[in-house]
Amino acid sequence: METIKNYINGQWIEAAEAEYASVINPATGEEVARTPLCGPEVVDAAAQAAAAALPAWRRTPAQDRIQYLFKLRDLLKSHQDEIARAIVIEAGKTFDEAKAEMVRAIENVETACGIPMMMKGEIAEDIAPGIDERMLRQPVGVCATICPFNFPGMIPFWYLPYALACGNTYVIKPSEKVPLTMQVIFRLIDQVGFPAGVVNMVNGAKAAVDAILDHPAIRAVTFVGSSPVARYIYLRAAERGKRVQAQGGAKNPVVILPDADMDMAVRIVSDSAFGCAGQRCLAVSWVVTVDQARQPFLERICESARSKVVGYGLDQGVQMGPVISQAARERIEGLIGVGVRDGAQALVDGRGALIPGYEKGSFIRPTVLDHVQPGSELSKTEIFGPVLSLTHVNTLEEALELVNAGVYGNQASIFTASGAAARRFSYEAQAGNIGINIGVAAPMAFFPFSGWKDSFFGDLHGQGMDAVEFFTQKKVVVERWPKDWSRQF
Amino acid sequence: METIKNYINGQWIEAAEAEYASVINPATGEEVARTPLCGPEVVDAAAQAAAAALPAWRRTPAQDRIQYLFKLRDLLKSHQDEIARAIVIEAGKTFDEAKAEMVRAIENVETACGIPMMMKGEIAEDIAPGIDERMLRQPVGVCATICPFNFPGMIPFWYLPYALACGNTYVIKPSEKVPLTMQVIFRLIDQVGFPAGVVNMVNGAKAAVDAILDHPAIRAVTFVGSSPVARYIYLRAAERGKRVQAQGGAKNPVVILPDADMDMAVRIVSDSAFGCAGQRCLAVSWVVTVDQARQPFLERICESARSKVVGYGLDQGVQMGPVISQAARERIEGLIGVGVRDGAQALVDGRGALIPGYEKGSFIRPTVLDHVQPGSELSKTEIFGPVLSLTHVNTLEEALELVNAGVYGNQASIFTASGAAARRFSYEAQAGNIGINIGVAAPMAFFPFSGWKDSFFGDLHGQGMDAVEFFTQKKVVVERWPKDWSRQF
Amino acid sequence: METIKNYINGQWIEAAEAEYASVINPATGEEVARTPLCGPEVVDAAAQAAAAALPAWRRTPAQDRIQYLFKLRDLLKSHQDEIARAIVIEAGKTFDEAKAEMVRAIENVETACGIPMMMKGEIAEDIAPGIDERMLRQPVGVCATICPFNFPGMIPFWYLPYALACGNTYVIKPSEKVPLTMQVIFRLIDQVGFPAGVVNMVNGAKAAVDAILDHPAIRAVTFVGSSPVARYIYLRAAERGKRVQAQGGAKNPVVILPDADMDMAVRIVSDSAFGCAGQRCLAVSWVVTVDQARQPFLERICESARSKVVGYGLDQGVQMGPVISQAARERIEGLIGVGVRDGAQALVDGRGALIPGYEKGSFIRPTVLDHVQPGSELSKTEIFGPVLSLTHVNTLEEALELVNAGVYGNQASIFTASGAAARRFSYEAQAGNIGINIGVAAPMAFFPFSGWKDSFFGDLHGQGMDAVEFFTQKKVVVERWPKDWSRQF
Amino acid sequence: METIKNYINGQWIEAAEAEYASVINPATGEEVARTPLCGPEVVDAAAQAAAAALPAWRRTPAQDRIQYLFKLRDLLKSHQDEIARAIVIEAGKTFDEAKAEMVRAIENVETACGIPMMMKGEIAEDIAPGIDERMLRQPVGVCATICPFNFPGMIPFWYLPYALACGNTYVIKPSEKVPLTMQVIFRLIDQVGFPAGVVNMVNGAKAAVDAILDHPAIRAVTFVGSSPVARYIYLRAAERGKRVQAQGGAKNPVVILPDADMDMAVRIVSDSAFGCAGQRCLAVSWVVTVDQARQPFLERICESARSKVVGYGLDQGVQMGPVISQAARERIEGLIGVGVRDGAQALVDGRGALIPGYEKGSFIRPTVLDHVQPGSELSKTEIFGPVLSLTHVNTLEEALELVNAGVYGNQASIFTASGAAARRFSYEAQAGNIGINIGVAAPMAFFPFSGWKDSFFGDLHGQGMDAVEFFTQKKVVVERWPKDWSRQF
Repeated sequence: METIKNYINGQWIEAAEAEYASVINPATGEEVARTPLCGPEVVDAAAQAAAAALPAWRRTPAQDRIQYLFKLRDLLKSHQDEIARAIVIEAGKTFDEAKAEMVRAIENVETACGIPMMMKGEIAEDIAPGIDERMLRQPVGVCATICPFNFPGMIPFWYLPYALACGNTYVIKPSEKVPLTMQVIFRLIDQVGFPAGVVNMVNGAKAAVDAILDHPAIRAVTFVGSSPVARYIYLRAAERGKRVQAQGGAKNPVVILPDADMDMAVRIVSDSAFGCAGQRCLAVSWVVTVDQARQPFLERICESARSKVVGYGLDQGVQMGPVISQAARERIEGLIGVGVRDGAQALVDGRGALIPGYEKGSFIRPTVLDHVQPGSELSKTEIFGPVLSLTHVNTLEEALELVNAGVYGNQASIFTASGAAARRFSYEAQAGNIGINIGVAAPMAFFPFSGWKDSFFGDLHGQGMDAVEFFTQKKVVVERWPKDWSRQF
Repeated sequence: METIKNYINGQWIEAAEAEYASVINPATGEEVARTPLCGPEVVDAAAQAAAAALPAWRRTPAQDRIQYLFKLRDLLKSHQDEIARAIVIEAGKTFDEAKAEMVRAIENVETACGIPMMMKGEIAEDIAPGIDERMLRQPVGVCATICPFNFPGMIPFWYLPYALACGNTYVIKPSEKVPLTMQVIFRLIDQVGFPAGVVNMVNGAKAAVDAILDHPAIRAVTFVGSSPVARYIYLRAAERGKRVQAQGGAKNPVVILPDADMDMAVRIVSDSAFGCAGQRCLAVSWVVTVDQARQPFLERICESARSKVVGYGLDQGVQMGPVISQAARERIEGLIGVGVRDGAQALVDGRGALIPGYEKGSFIRPTVLDHVQPGSELSKTEIFGPVLSLTHVNTLEEALELVNAGVYGNQASIFTASGAAARRFSYEAQAGNIGINIGVAAPMAFFPFSGWKDSFFGDLHGQGMDAVEFFTQKKVVVERWPKDWSRQF
Repeated sequence: METIKNYINGQWIEAAEAEYASVINPATGEEVARTPLCGPEVVDAAAQAAAAALPAWRRTPAQDRIQYLFKLRDLLKSHQDEIARAIVIEAGKTFDEAKAEMVRAIENVETACGIPMMMKGEIAEDIAPGIDERMLRQPVGVCATICPFNFPGMIPFWYLPYALACGNTYVIKPSEKVPLTMQVIFRLIDQVGFPAGVVNMVNGAKAAVDAILDHPAIRAVTFVGSSPVARYIYLRAAERGKRVQAQGGAKNPVVILPDADMDMAVRIVSDSAFGCAGQRCLAVSWVVTVDQARQPFLERICESARSKVVGYGLDQGVQMGPVISQAARERIEGLIGVGVRDGAQALVDGRGALIPGYEKGSFIRPTVLDHVQPGSELSKTEIFGPVLSLTHVNTLEEALELVNAGVYGNQASIFTASGAAARRFSYEAQAGNIGINIGVAAPMAFFPFSGWKDSFFGDLHGQGMDAVEFFTQKKVVVERWPKDWSRQF
Repeated sequence: METIKNYINGQWIEAAEAEYASVINPATGEEVARTPLCGPEVVDAAAQAAAAALPAWRRTPAQDRIQYLFKLRDLLKSHQDEIARAIVIEAGKTFDEAKAEMVRAIENVETACGIPMMMKGEIAEDIAPGIDERMLRQPVGVCATICPFNFPGMIPFWYLPYALACGNTYVIKPSEKVPLTMQVIFRLIDQVGFPAGVVNMVNGAKAAVDAILDHPAIRAVTFVGSSPVARYIYLRAAERGKRVQAQGGAKNPVVILPDADMDMAVRIVSDSAFGCAGQRCLAVSWVVTVDQARQPFLERICESARSKVVGYGLDQGVQMGPVISQAARERIEGLIGVGVRDGAQALVDGRGALIPGYEKGSFIRPTVLDHVQPGSELSKTEIFGPVLSLTHVNTLEEALELVNAGVYGNQASIFTASGAAARRFSYEAQAGNIGINIGVAAPMAFFPFSGWKDSFFGDLHGQGMDAVEFFTQKKVVVERWPKDWSRQF
């Protein structure tokens, strides 16, 4: 059984005096590691190391900084299976899901390799005669990321490669539920050979989070998690005057029009709703069928839900794993119960799942709830489990009203063959990521990972140019060199 | 005597039930207007009007929206003198300063006329075979700006033209000290003929500020003022989940190297320090002379300070006006006293100024304090008056240390003939706006008005592309149209 | 009757010694003006004036240069009717068409007002330690445009405002068939008050064209016209080492799918094919109906063609004017004859049109030819008149093959309700401008006016950022200021 | 002895029937390989293969296409020494020069890995109500590059990685003088595993060049070489309607001001002038000393020139190799003679160099000519050898006049400590690449490799975004989806 270590100033450090928590494999229920719950001292050590490494790293040309990323990219690619295995073990995904997660992580490293182009400033000659003005993008300083449990291998890479390539130094805190993946990845980071202090990792829970938010040397914080915590992060970082972006939860609707390709729609919606056991912030969790779409969709989605092979992600043929913990399982089953009590009909009920050989696993089978009433608790609460709610309306107009009534705005999707319906939806749906015949509208690394309303607090997002804008601060230089002065020559 | 009105939903509205405050001409001490201190009801009316106007305004093509700005630009240009006069009367500037302020305001309107180009989204074909992805910039919703007293005619235009051109609707709250200028400008805005509710103005003080920060329909807030208030705005807006940028105060250093053109340096530094009576967030307030630069600079700056013609801005030949209020005058004179007590030497002492004919004016003459110790109260406090502190060091290295030791980061300037010294300064000085042989490094409208450290809270700034990024939210659309589907034809 | 003058070095100059040609009103057949066919001497005078004006104009800040454009924009807007009348008189358009043309012209002036933002260069710090690199956009020098007859008021503005705003000086040669419009516009340009020599106009025909192409002071040339001439311009300008873009002719297909909204499709296609008497480089001239679309489209388009009110553009209710000249009329009627001889069926035959009161006008009525064979002369030749050819195929696949078989690539359109068909078309159709349920896919001024294959020679286009790229040359500056050097201070 | 092969459609092909030319090691005079002088048939085979590969390659997502580049980058990096050795053997460079060349090549591959970000199009919603417009960048088709002898390993990479990443297929023709390097590199390209036909190489001389220029399937051509040939390429490609950019020769001046750091200036100018035996298009070949700069610069540059260790690039300690051929040697020695005859004084005369052990090598030692008269043949002719001319003037003004009098405009440099002199120089010097205290102002890969006047024909350059603009064609799509149409749902 592994003991999770911190990585500070280029060294692996065991957190001798910390309290420790168990890391549980959610499929087997076994403890697979012990992780330290570090506090302000450790965060301070990491922040100090990062601050000390800053001046030299900032002076390293961007073209040289990305050489580390090229190396990291190669290492991540050649160790994809090893990392994926760690993800399966601690986060409960299937092996394919875990590998797909790493594809996205690597894509972000690749995109950040383009920093010399993306980080350029701007220049204008003669804003007044003989006076030039330029805008430079310079690093912000020490930056930190607080990670969620659901994508232990990917979400750090929405930020880390950009922050580093832009000349910042960095502290990352993985979720204490899934610290193993970052242990594997930091072994690779160590191999890359970044100068000591440039990248640091601290393990811990709330105390570490607060220490990061409060540390004066840390200038910028990014977070991904639930909306209440995102809100807390946003507020507390603001209180300390930091720049901050905090991505929250979701309740992603999908609208099915009668002209949709039903087979495709069902396949894609099923993958979106039940993939990663529904623990994706872009998972579709709420289907709004329009008019004639109801019957054909409903029948097939139930069939699809029932046929999913649920089990341990490392076993062959498994299509869906457990949710992250027994506590999560209980919470989700409770919410299904609430839904049924409020009038929903459980067409497929995944509660009480028993997976032979994994009796201690926190499994829930795919669940489909029909007649979920708009306005009911279930229609508003983020379940974050393999539970799909169904609502029926008569027109696209009504569907859009439902889509826009919620407090979240992470994703909204539509299935249709109509160019006009698609355009209207993409124009009117109030969400940061829109899918047209798409189940998980996850932006590529060269686009921002957007989010609207209560799904996001801040203005600049992760990935691509937004990350560059976030991890640099603009310096405007106005320069006068009187022509006369050169007359001396 | 004018009674200040609000402008809501395309109507001029007298705030019948509000408490009223006096608007004082700081040069004459006379009350020139009464302004209502509106509260949540009025803010709510404005926000509601803005919210109601949003859907139609957003659907108006950007190319049509900018037609209003072209008209506004023409009106501002042809009414420049009238607006400038209002600025002089309530803010105490000279007429030339007031006109220069409006040049910058107009420049921002002109830049925002380019919104169709600036607001474009991005598109990538085939992120996977047959799947396209695009990023759209859509308006944020109702936006608001809370304005300071020192640039009543300019600062609103760092935001207003961009916010509107991007399809947002808008609420502006002028400073209750200087509400007249916006009365004049809104008469022009009224003439432009924006659809009702698109632009709204509410007059008031802290209650109005809080109502703006708390109003659920207002999605984004910008602020310019002192750092403590900026911090408050940042925190309270964050608490309400809004996107926010807040620009604070400054203590802008200027470094004089021995190879500087001393005549030019003195002229420019004097204009920067004493222009607008030192009430500019980019005013130089702290000179660091290096080595041999001390003596020549010191002599001439005192001469320049003494020779400034102080008086009422509407009178001919006046070079500097009063500070904003008697309270400000007392505060500033008090700070000069503190400086002297702490060991500074008042080479030129502007306290107790008496301007014949304007005995009730809140005048302070240009003041030069030598031997201001690094670390002393005066070296750290934003005076916001015509007071220039002098410190002497032996090397550029030491000068940079002083420059970077402060908590603010609005501007830092250097005077030198050396390309190497200039480059080093622009690379190392920790401030958002850098001047090389420049006294007021105010970015043109097509650059961001940057600010670092405690001079700015947030990440995106006013003006130019930053304003577009701030006043739009990104929507990513992932679109799949299977090629097979077109086989039916 | 007006005598057309040149405008050189800020002066109106009559070309005393030139040969003169008649300008004919194509609706009345009357001579409305005499225009000089200037040669190399006059071109040289204009080029010299432009070259002399270059250094000062280039040093004028971009922000100041655009002030002229703002003024020009206001003048064009307030004189729209006057300009439109000139267009009708010499080019034969309807008054509405002429006004619509000027809307697009003004839009380009408005877009070019954004030059300070668009013309910015780029900068990177530390490409190696202590070495910075920047790319500046500086003006190319003297630039020239050679204009066609079909948009006398618009096409100059694809280039002129950008060229000037970027700091170039400029020579324009209107078409000798339609020189009146530019006389009106240059009266406004004169009123704007550009410094003498910044904008110049030379009237003439081939001799003037060659003189422009050969003049050593002219660094860049743009052209719009037929493909053979475009090719000639491209070659001859290249021979002289100039940068050049030349836009040629077109044969624009439109595909009608059976699921299209037929009423809308017919209305739009009819407007596209017969508007401006078919003399637009984006006019649809060739309909490919797919499967069931044939019958409904065919019936209605004939009806629409027959019902067009043909006459003099200044008369009320007229929907279509004459073609540019009797020679053009004869050429077009000849081509209709060729089509019929090759097997096409003239469903609506517009030859031999007689418009009461305008018997000397060069009128052709809308013409619809069915069964135009792919590969026949008519299917390949640009007719540039109100003639619409129809071809029928069974599938979208076949339609795309026809669309892509031609030598031109200016525009291709499709009418459909299917998102998938639209995507496939926009992905596969080989043309620079694609319309989805659009008849004239004319890019807005903030997009490039693209063109592919034999419709365009060069790489950068007119309008927007392409124009900025074309009218500036990039200068890369690599700068080293050793930090050590600042040690002296 | 190697026989050079072509690489067509993924296969190594020996050009059985071609005439062959000798590849000579310029240091030893030995024949090191035989290279085929292929004609139109082979070019046609390559172009056909590229055309056949185009549709599938274009449909491959950019994100997938760059995976090949990441692999290529790794292979180039791990085979740097092997490639460098080939460069030394056929091009006569020193081993360090050859390795530095490959650093720049690799940098371009790395930059092109950012294509997904760089190739994005643009989109605007609601250009009119409900109508959207987008600009897509799509590949041009089959593209070709014609390479010079002086950078056999680098110049292809100004184009190749961008062309491929943008979805084009590609034909490259190395210089027949130095075909070995590309043999090594194509072995790596073969290892990368691009789909057959995506990258092709044809060896040959003028017949191959003409065949490329004339081939109808080749849509775009880039060239680097001498100005007369660049002009020819530009003209002939234009005649065939292709898009084209052609980089020509240079005569790069460097201005030395009296305040320059003379030691640094001499070291850098010497490296620039004599590095690669002066066969770089950015080599400084003409020094203009100003005022007091003359004497100190002159003495030290002669010393530096005399002390260069000339020899075979694979031998230890060698600082300069031979010129490319005996013919080149004779031409250069002849030009030195012309200079002396016209009044120049050979302070250091490198003619008749004899390098023990390499008696058959085409060596010239560094040469310094003083008193080269402005206007003399030597002052205007590109020597392309290790010959530095000196001219003296009294002021910067005069120096700038000389700099701008020439027909070339590749690079101009200045050495000074003055910010004002540097700004004036970078503003006024008419060259595409400017060096401030820099000897070889070679733009990084993320900047364009600019060139002005007779040093460049075209508008878009190689490297960075310019390459993306050149290797894509813009397609504008205007799309209308009436909102009403979605009412059916």
